[in-house]
Amino acid sequence: MKVVRVTVTPIAFRDPPLLNASGIHEPYALRSIIEVESDNGYVGLGESYGDAPALAIQQQLQQELIGLDPFKLNILRETVARVVARVTPASAAGAELAPGSHASKALSNAYSAFEVAFLDLQARSLNRPLVDMLGGALRTEVPFSAYLFFKYAEHIDSPYPPDAWGEAISEEQIVAQAKSMIDRYGFKSIKLKAGALEPEHEVSCVKALKRAFPQHQLRIDPNGNWSLATSLRMAKLLDGCLEYYEDPTPGLEGMSELHRQTGLPLATNMVVTDFDEFRRSVALNSVQIVLADHHYWGGLRDTQTLAAMCATFGLGVSMHSNSHLGISLMAMTHVAASVPNLSYACDTHYPWQEEDEEVIKGGKLPIVDGCVRITEAPGLGVELDHEQLGKLHEQFLSCGIRARNDVRQMQRYRPDWETVKPRY
Amino acid sequence: MKVVRVTVTPIAFRDPPLLNASGIHEPYALRSIIEVESDNGYVGLGESYGDAPALAIQQQLQQELIGLDPFKLNILRETVARVVARVTPASAAGAELAPGSHASKALSNAYSAFEVAFLDLQARSLNRPLVDMLGGALRTEVPFSAYLFFKYAEHIDSPYPPDAWGEAISEEQIVAQAKSMIDRYGFKSIKLKAGALEPEHEVSCVKALKRAFPQHQLRIDPNGNWSLATSLRMAKLLDGCLEYYEDPTPGLEGMSELHRQTGLPLATNMVVTDFDEFRRSVALNSVQIVLADHHYWGGLRDTQTLAAMCATFGLGVSMHSNSHLGISLMAMTHVAASVPNLSYACDTHYPWQEEDEEVIKGGKLPIVDGCVRITEAPGLGVELDHEQLGKLHEQFLSCGIRARNDVRQMQRYRPDWETVKPRY
Repeated sequence: MKVVRVTVTPIAFRDPPLLNASGIHEPYALRSIIEVESDNGYVGLGESYGDAPALAIQQQLQQELIGLDPFKLNILRETVARVVARVTPASAAGAELAPGSHASKALSNAYSAFEVAFLDLQARSLNRPLVDMLGGALRTEVPFSAYLFFKYAEHIDSPYPPDAWGEAISEEQIVAQAKSMIDRYGFKSIKLKAGALEPEHEVSCVKALKRAFPQHQLRIDPNGNWSLATSLRMAKLLDGCLEYYEDPTPGLEGMSELHRQTGLPLATNMVVTDFDEFRRSVALNSVQIVLADHHYWGGLRDTQTLAAMCATFGLGVSMHSNSHLGISLMAMTHVAASVPNLSYACDTHYPWQEEDEEVIKGGKLPIVDGCVRITEAPGLGVELDHEQLGKLHEQFLSCGIRARNDVRQMQRYRPDWETVKPRY
Repeated sequence: MKVVRVTVTPIAFRDPPLLNASGIHEPYALRSIIEVESDNGYVGLGESYGDAPALAIQQQLQQELIGLDPFKLNILRETVARVVARVTPASAAGAELAPGSHASKALSNAYSAFEVAFLDLQARSLNRPLVDMLGGALRTEVPFSAYLFFKYAEHIDSPYPPDAWGEAISEEQIVAQAKSMIDRYGFKSIKLKAGALEPEHEVSCVKALKRAFPQHQLRIDPNGNWSLATSLRMAKLLDGCLEYYEDPTPGLEGMSELHRQTGLPLATNMVVTDFDEFRRSVALNSVQIVLADHHYWGGLRDTQTLAAMCATFGLGVSMHSNSHLGISLMAMTHVAASVPNLSYACDTHYPWQEEDEEVIKGGKLPIVDGCVRITEAPGLGVELDHEQLGKLHEQFLSCGIRARNDVRQMQRYRPDWETVKPRY
């Protein structure tokens, strides 16, 4: 079994004006869709970062992977390492919220993009679900959380009609957003992306959510935008209503000190983003929950390794998400189904993507009772819709965005907006 | 694909009178040979501990595994855990030199025995080498070391004719043993099992080896039988002629202190034998090299996880061995071929086993230039010789040994022999 074709197609899809610590989401999010075809007629799928530096490496790899055996993942990694060493990637501007775009992550990021497609190809050729390449499913339903954002009603300069979610700035609007999301998808836990507005207001919103959804688990994620002092002050105000406190303050040292002073379980996708940071976090006792993300942790098998390391060092495991479509969602779901110690519902931006912008056949995947299901269908269990792929690729070509930059986008609303970290 | 038959066959094979920290090897070593057959006619092989407590669990599992899908390793692990919880194993007497026999290792030990057979079955059904189930080979030749022992010429009461190696007590005899082993197998590194005789004599033997084989890497393994003071004193006498210093002194704390005082790289298969001990070793900086052993670390994939953890925490990786036959040798070789950071030649007792006592077709596997090769042959690349299996099973039935006990065996030579640790 040999790889005969690798196609990397950059796409752009509409993204709502979601606020965060850096600024605001641009009107389009970028991804790449990967197809790896084997000489026996199967096609494995992958989805990864579509920012220019990541894309450059993925595109260089298209030719290099021809002839590889999709079972030989160790050779894939060596091949990716060779190409990455040749292409020194520029550091991506918007990378702080998307750790996979860091130049230092170029290898694990590019490897992951193709590892998923290779595993998918393995599984399809065996007429088995991908999770069987990971030791098989321990659960067929993987829980996800409602991922709330402060947001504007529409993008500046209105590149397209406003989304259906409307503005979310006030407590009432955030509670309403949570209600629609939970009504629609049945989520049992709620995450509020914070670090965007005044901390006191964000905390009030969490408390309003707690009153409205007393049975739900709650999390707040200020993306490292609060100083240690602010994080401590907010911890008091939050008064034990959190399941975990996600990346309130920057740095392994800051998180360590915050945990020491509050005893609160701290989660992260910012200070532990690779195995070296894992090691340093263990030494400092910085975090108690690692939010894994196969896109930058080096693929599905390395995500399993990370989970095993978390078990060893007594840390919880859940999953981080950036804006993504169904191929990434299913890759996350398959690996999550195989991880014994998945301790918390995973994050996903998926509800924020539009119904008519999925690249897989049949449109968006269902989320029922807060869970995504894996089935016995071969591989990831999804098929590529080439018409949709073409449409989203055209949108990539025309949208003008080549690397995510939420700071620059916010400057279009507020010319005095600057990168300050922590801002509060 | 479903499991339709599981057969666990205990065997005994001749073992030379090798001296160690506990006492002396008994005339027969015990193993179990595992066959797992699938409904599409393939048979996966495994080899594991044949001591009574391990065997009891393996035999209980024979029925429980019927109907499982050999790709669903996570379900295998859950099944093994259920059975292990039911059968509370007695702690094995001779377990200190065979960590897989510890009662606390019952799960990882039993899981491993069948995981190898399940992976072998997967690979055979795909007509691929087993290493492809581990991401594929990074090398096709895996280096092993010459594993020297102090030994007597023959067993007490002469249960069978003496082995061809003769006595090895003096410097000259140890150098001669090394020479025959290297002439025959081409090993590039030498390990001396120590902790058996006076430490000064053992160190003199290492120095004699160094003079005789100046280009070879040397290691000494007193199996934790030296006090910290003795270990420090011997470190001085050894004067930098070691590649690493293996388990000179007992305990994570002792090893940590020894490293702190000497700076020598310390290797272990005694103080880091599971993931919890790994965590504690990291905290104490006890060891610098972990000698993995899939038989008690929970199988081939967990050995890969261990290797990844060693990479993360800056530790070297190599492999430990007990007395074993060719199925274990090939399982070790396949996983070693897949581990990027295999830092040292692996240990193996294989040269000590007799030519006419291999259970695989074609007799003993070749070791050439110190290496064992993996090929593209399906699965482990070896087939079971049922005639030999029958013969070695008969020997198990008649030999009278049911659990390794090197202390009791030494008492037959020296009635005043006692378990003292550390002895020197």
